Amino acid sequence: MEIEIATIGGYEEVGRQMTAVRAGNDVVIFDMGLNLSQVLIHDNVETERMHSLDLIDMGAIPDDRIMSDLEGDVQAIVPTHGHLDHIGAISKLAHRYDAPIVATPFTIELVKQQIESEQKFGVENDLVKMDAGETMTIGDHGVELEFVNVTHSIIDAINPVLHTPEGAIVYGLDKRMDHTPVIGDPIDMERFREIGREDEGVLCYIEDCTNAGRKGRTPSEKVAREHLRDTLYSMEDYDGGIVATTFSSHIARVKSLVEFADDIGRQPVLLGRSMEKYSGTAERLDFVDFPTDLGMFGHRKSVDRTFKRIMNEGKENFLPIVTGHQGEPRAMLTRMARGETPYELNAGDKVVFSARVIPEPTNEGQRYQAEKLLGMQGARIYDDIHVSGHLNQEGHYEMLDALQPQNVIPAHNDLEHLARYIDLAENQGYALGRDLHATRNGNLIQLVD
Amino acid sequence: MEIEIATIGGYEEVGRQMTAVRAGNDVVIFDMGLNLSQVLIHDNVETERMHSLDLIDMGAIPDDRIMSDLEGDVQAIVPTHGHLDHIGAISKLAHRYDAPIVATPFTIELVKQQIESEQKFGVENDLVKMDAGETMTIGDHGVELEFVNVTHSIIDAINPVLHTPEGAIVYGLDKRMDHTPVIGDPIDMERFREIGREDEGVLCYIEDCTNAGRKGRTPSEKVAREHLRDTLYSMEDYDGGIVATTFSSHIARVKSLVEFADDIGRQPVLLGRSMEKYSGTAERLDFVDFPTDLGMFGHRKSVDRTFKRIMNEGKENFLPIVTGHQGEPRAMLTRMARGETPYELNAGDKVVFSARVIPEPTNEGQRYQAEKLLGMQGARIYDDIHVSGHLNQEGHYEMLDALQPQNVIPAHNDLEHLARYIDLAENQGYALGRDLHATRNGNLIQLVD
Amino acid sequence: MEIEIATIGGYEEVGRQMTAVRAGNDVVIFDMGLNLSQVLIHDNVETERMHSLDLIDMGAIPDDRIMSDLEGDVQAIVPTHGHLDHIGAISKLAHRYDAPIVATPFTIELVKQQIESEQKFGVENDLVKMDAGETMTIGDHGVELEFVNVTHSIIDAINPVLHTPEGAIVYGLDKRMDHTPVIGDPIDMERFREIGREDEGVLCYIEDCTNAGRKGRTPSEKVAREHLRDTLYSMEDYDGGIVATTFSSHIARVKSLVEFADDIGRQPVLLGRSMEKYSGTAERLDFVDFPTDLGMFGHRKSVDRTFKRIMNEGKENFLPIVTGHQGEPRAMLTRMARGETPYELNAGDKVVFSARVIPEPTNEGQRYQAEKLLGMQGARIYDDIHVSGHLNQEGHYEMLDALQPQNVIPAHNDLEHLARYIDLAENQGYALGRDLHATRNGNLIQLVD
Amino acid sequence: MEIEIATIGGYEEVGRQMTAVRAGNDVVIFDMGLNLSQVLIHDNVETERMHSLDLIDMGAIPDDRIMSDLEGDVQAIVPTHGHLDHIGAISKLAHRYDAPIVATPFTIELVKQQIESEQKFGVENDLVKMDAGETMTIGDHGVELEFVNVTHSIIDAINPVLHTPEGAIVYGLDKRMDHTPVIGDPIDMERFREIGREDEGVLCYIEDCTNAGRKGRTPSEKVAREHLRDTLYSMEDYDGGIVATTFSSHIARVKSLVEFADDIGRQPVLLGRSMEKYSGTAERLDFVDFPTDLGMFGHRKSVDRTFKRIMNEGKENFLPIVTGHQGEPRAMLTRMARGETPYELNAGDKVVFSARVIPEPTNEGQRYQAEKLLGMQGARIYDDIHVSGHLNQEGHYEMLDALQPQNVIPAHNDLEHLARYIDLAENQGYALGRDLHATRNGNLIQLVD
Repeated sequence: MEIEIATIGGYEEVGRQMTAVRAGNDVVIFDMGLNLSQVLIHDNVETERMHSLDLIDMGAIPDDRIMSDLEGDVQAIVPTHGHLDHIGAISKLAHRYDAPIVATPFTIELVKQQIESEQKFGVENDLVKMDAGETMTIGDHGVELEFVNVTHSIIDAINPVLHTPEGAIVYGLDKRMDHTPVIGDPIDMERFREIGREDEGVLCYIEDCTNAGRKGRTPSEKVAREHLRDTLYSMEDYDGGIVATTFSSHIARVKSLVEFADDIGRQPVLLGRSMEKYSGTAERLDFVDFPTDLGMFGHRKSVDRTFKRIMNEGKENFLPIVTGHQGEPRAMLTRMARGETPYELNAGDKVVFSARVIPEPTNEGQRYQAEKLLGMQGARIYDDIHVSGHLNQEGHYEMLDALQPQNVIPAHNDLEHLARYIDLAENQGYALGRDLHATRNGNLIQLVD
Repeated sequence: MEIEIATIGGYEEVGRQMTAVRAGNDVVIFDMGLNLSQVLIHDNVETERMHSLDLIDMGAIPDDRIMSDLEGDVQAIVPTHGHLDHIGAISKLAHRYDAPIVATPFTIELVKQQIESEQKFGVENDLVKMDAGETMTIGDHGVELEFVNVTHSIIDAINPVLHTPEGAIVYGLDKRMDHTPVIGDPIDMERFREIGREDEGVLCYIEDCTNAGRKGRTPSEKVAREHLRDTLYSMEDYDGGIVATTFSSHIARVKSLVEFADDIGRQPVLLGRSMEKYSGTAERLDFVDFPTDLGMFGHRKSVDRTFKRIMNEGKENFLPIVTGHQGEPRAMLTRMARGETPYELNAGDKVVFSARVIPEPTNEGQRYQAEKLLGMQGARIYDDIHVSGHLNQEGHYEMLDALQPQNVIPAHNDLEHLARYIDLAENQGYALGRDLHATRNGNLIQLVD
Repeated sequence: MEIEIATIGGYEEVGRQMTAVRAGNDVVIFDMGLNLSQVLIHDNVETERMHSLDLIDMGAIPDDRIMSDLEGDVQAIVPTHGHLDHIGAISKLAHRYDAPIVATPFTIELVKQQIESEQKFGVENDLVKMDAGETMTIGDHGVELEFVNVTHSIIDAINPVLHTPEGAIVYGLDKRMDHTPVIGDPIDMERFREIGREDEGVLCYIEDCTNAGRKGRTPSEKVAREHLRDTLYSMEDYDGGIVATTFSSHIARVKSLVEFADDIGRQPVLLGRSMEKYSGTAERLDFVDFPTDLGMFGHRKSVDRTFKRIMNEGKENFLPIVTGHQGEPRAMLTRMARGETPYELNAGDKVVFSARVIPEPTNEGQRYQAEKLLGMQGARIYDDIHVSGHLNQEGHYEMLDALQPQNVIPAHNDLEHLARYIDLAENQGYALGRDLHATRNGNLIQLVD
Repeated sequence: MEIEIATIGGYEEVGRQMTAVRAGNDVVIFDMGLNLSQVLIHDNVETERMHSLDLIDMGAIPDDRIMSDLEGDVQAIVPTHGHLDHIGAISKLAHRYDAPIVATPFTIELVKQQIESEQKFGVENDLVKMDAGETMTIGDHGVELEFVNVTHSIIDAINPVLHTPEGAIVYGLDKRMDHTPVIGDPIDMERFREIGREDEGVLCYIEDCTNAGRKGRTPSEKVAREHLRDTLYSMEDYDGGIVATTFSSHIARVKSLVEFADDIGRQPVLLGRSMEKYSGTAERLDFVDFPTDLGMFGHRKSVDRTFKRIMNEGKENFLPIVTGHQGEPRAMLTRMARGETPYELNAGDKVVFSARVIPEPTNEGQRYQAEKLLGMQGARIYDDIHVSGHLNQEGHYEMLDALQPQNVIPAHNDLEHLARYIDLAENQGYALGRDLHATRNGNLIQLVD
């Protein structure tokens, strides 16, 4: 059976991930992501109303025109988790393919919301839920799709595995090797090892290189949680305002914030559109068990009403958990910093960034401005209470050891980052150009012919 | 009563801390430290045989000649904890003063060992043990010395407080605000707050500026411990060599390493002169309860014999905990990296640095070389599993809030670092040149006259 | 005669420089600057319409309320050169003082333009021109004001010297020791040395610490000119668009750009409001001899008309010299990058930044965005073709050697930068707190009483 | 005719460059370099006595065992210039090949000296001199070797071009596009353009990626010369010691130092083994016209005798130009810093580093120590008076434009640096894996078969 990989997007950047695997006549697409920074650098762009080709020209979504070179039928579109760089182009591209979107329940729900907010295209693909640990038949020639549970900075993340007669294709993007996650099960290394030992073995492993240059092991979410606990508990006696911010989609982190708020005698409340969206969805789907009275507000009016209530009842009784960890100009924390909300910051009030600045000058500039504006009002900054969601070097070594793949394709970054992974894989006996493939957006790699 | 502060050393560098406080006719000296880097930059210097004046000229020990300008009798020499930059000049300077050395038991023991290894001077000052929480009368005019328990990267650390009729002088160097230390009691903030509320209040607070430029709060040792646990537990299935290194004097960290080694089925063993010295001392004084069969070896012969045993019985059964976290040329880990010990590293073996590189090009160069040599043998590096022992900004704010000092003297670094503390203290209402003193080595500050 | 220095602004930041010197009953004010970044961080602020007190609260202009503590009459307001951080607050503060504004001709012209654009206050102080090398009597007690020629990144810069019976006060901000400037005379070191040798000598030297942490010597403008020449000459054969940007007020640099444009067969044209303002002023005052047909356009309409003409006549015949070297959102180069002007960039077109990014995350973010947008259109970036306008360490040593001042007051930055100067001055025998003064905004230093 | 490229060394590092080109049966080897840092990291290694295989295992010299896979006869070994990373392995590897070493006169002389100091192998290959602009026939099938003049940080550097019936192979390592070099002719861009326009064109271009991540254009040596002139002229009035250091092999820089020393009334003198070696060789071969009485001393005794003479006759009359710009532990400047020479440094003496620190922690640590030791004696540091010898991005674009190569192979660095070049080449229409080759040490690339 012919096996071919189309490396469509995310091989020259972080952002617009998209890869297709053809096994015989059956094609499965993994991820359809959006590179948001390519959009935001232009003023006044509204992606909801834009046409795909314009977004492709901007480098914002994958250029999937290479799909016409891939002879076969798309049987499934498989986003691996709910981050925008993995699902953000579905509303622009999925309608071109007559195939269902298959994902875990939380991811499906986020895809559904995105499709609903799309204003240019009508996306009508079936949405099919499949849990980690489950499998689905693809086509009629013995190909199976399996979801293996992984741990990442969003819940319900999986690595899809396409089992073919020629061996398994493991699409390994976006995970951390977490044995003590705060929500959900640990990464299913046992299953990866089994797949590695199966008769046909692993034909190809596609890997996320984001942290391939970082030594050691990415710490567990439990380590971030202890750091966060230490930080918030140390504020127990403070009788002024405390505000926290983190990635809205990072439900485990939000949960820790909610719990520690309660532990130090404050009522947590989630504020900002994304905060409401992700946490609300997670709660509705029973991924997290928030206190029944936990407030979540997304619309500006209800947010401002909540801030007024907080000011009336006393800031010392609340812990607002808000959007804005990167200093995004329109996010809630930035509005607070600019004095545009009813919440008044006083000297000594504490702002906790449970996030790291994504290292890019635009973010760094915006975050700097947000912190400076907060500082002008006397606020104190606690930053970097975070762990990455991506494998460091030792996780990569462990995955190679578990899967023993015949081919490796580094992905999810530019060539400079891929280069660091290539060094690492060569240490394990792979050779560039032989079984280790440095590729670009828009290429086809024929593995079996 | 006249109160005067002599800022003798450590006000222009980290290293040779020494401060004297005169209350009427009675003088107490806090710390007599060594700036080791000023020694090491010269080849082949043996401090044990050197004269004080030469070491003063090198900038290695405090220039205490200003003490002759201080009219009064030295009643006590009080090192605050056992790090070299606080006790390392005692063997060179203490004999000039007819006064006992007063310190906590662990510190006293380290001072004693240092005096014994000195080869130039005979130091015969009395060594007096005093525990945190205890007090001692100084002279005959109502001055009392108190030790307040603090948490730092070495056990049995205190902040000495000199109670005078004019108010308390709090010598606040070298602490972290740790409510969940791994060994010993949490920092005694309750006592600091009491002292701040006393009638005379705090006349002067001398503070350590090392991290005054770092936002937020220094995490508890418990956070480092969870990070370390996560790291070592992740290696449980590895059947090759694992080696760890950390600050030898950091008994809490060594204890965590020893425990986690046991948890993952490996026998810990401490190797290197300093490892034996500090951990042996801590165990003899009952500060830590190591397994009875924990091996500690300092002399090269016994270390090499242990390495041979490890190689014979199987590296997979041991966790050597060694010196060399900064890549020091003669430390144990560097010797291992150079292949100068019987311990053979193999591809995939793991080296855990539970320490941060002290940010200075010399260290960075040496650590880089050590890591590169380790890497040439296939070793994998896990680094930065550590938390600082010094207060970040929020700890400084909290101390000012607790003590409400009338005067503040930033210390323990060069003026650039002091400047960061001065900014911080000015935010709290202090004013440079009024009640906030930017000083240098060799100055006298008259607080009450 | 009593001598007192009021350190009003610019002792905790770069930006709102202002210092007053009282000699007996006569007071002279040096500089009244604006800290533009404190304004720009807020959205939609129009300084022209704002009240002084609001600008003081924002930290944008000096808080001159301390002037009421200074017993004496202001006899002159003396801006040292035309940069905004030295003259930008004149329109907000000068009207409070019944004294003329005394400056060199180019500076006076820029002050006049600023006063004319002010919309809140009517400033009616006399504007008095005085050239480098000239002196003026201040009051009736033997005080003289002298202007000594210095070299900086703007023309007609001086260091004012106030000669008093107690010695000279040298206000030494903003200069480079340039013996081969491109416009104007070399720095007048001979005169500084003479002043240092005079009977009364130098009572006090106020110095600019911006580069006190940088080793060596700031290169001459001639070095930047050769670097720029090498860059532009290397483009001689290119037949597409070349665009250059630099500090608008840096007339010497603009002159070099204009000359080299001609050398490589291109017609230079200055575009952007500030370009027109500074170069037009310099030309009218005969500081620079531009080609008679050199176009300078500031208003958007005339700029766009010029761009259209360039596009019609062929980009290869022109070198637009534009504003926007820091990526400022509304500057000309940023508009070009966003495709908002008629000038079309093509792949291979060259953009020359004859400027360094002012190291602050806001600038770095904006400049990054501008370069990225330029790159999306295929433009190639040449950056860092520049030399600083401020003294490095060796220039500071040389000034101390020439002036032999009795007192030194570091200025023009925050305490961290002052600290670097203090280290340097202590190497020369000064002592902090004795004859070397670390001060803050809003202090009085009594030198003679 | 079959054309094949063997990428033997320097494709994963900077250091042990070696590439072979097979055209039919004829093979030409370009460069045989040494990676000195792989040697120096080990204590007490003497390369002169070591066997090739041990040096290959250390990663110090190219692993040329792949040459046995290349079917053909080596007709020439062609080092492109005299730097160690291009000629340093000749004494270890050349004797295995029955072929002459062909190079420019200065390079040949340095090769000869190296062979003479070798103690393990007897290298007896013919040494053939060929000047830039000349050609030589290789084998009997119409292959010609041409040397094109280029500009680099050493004199007499060329890029060899192998003209084959299938097109030219341009081996483009180590050059800067300098139109105003201080010694020798400008880079021969005219000839490169001609080669690009020839009938067969350029089959393959092998390019040096060192600076592929740096924007703009590498400045001409003339710019460094003006910077250096500005620096030294500013010291004209200083009547104490001035010392300069630079790359010993950088004859143009040494020449500038010698000239400017004379201009400011000081006698230059070259000190240190490498200083004597390179400058002596350049002078003997008439590449540079030094003053007839210019002293050059390499042996420690004669150096120390010279230092004594300088101290006797007055430091103010001399400018020692010494080795040690990277703080190498045994170089002359480091010895001076340690007080191990008769030259005594005084407070205010000036040390000029006409070199940049090669950015690697080992160098940075050693240089830091050297500067610190110099500073302890009062010396003042002038650093970074230098320009790179390698092409920045715009030079790369210009070369691609001139040569229009059918294939491009980035070289002379690790994959991360190669990646930056790959991005650049893709901007020009090349595609990775098609006509743009990311390769590793030990690969064969078949271009024509």
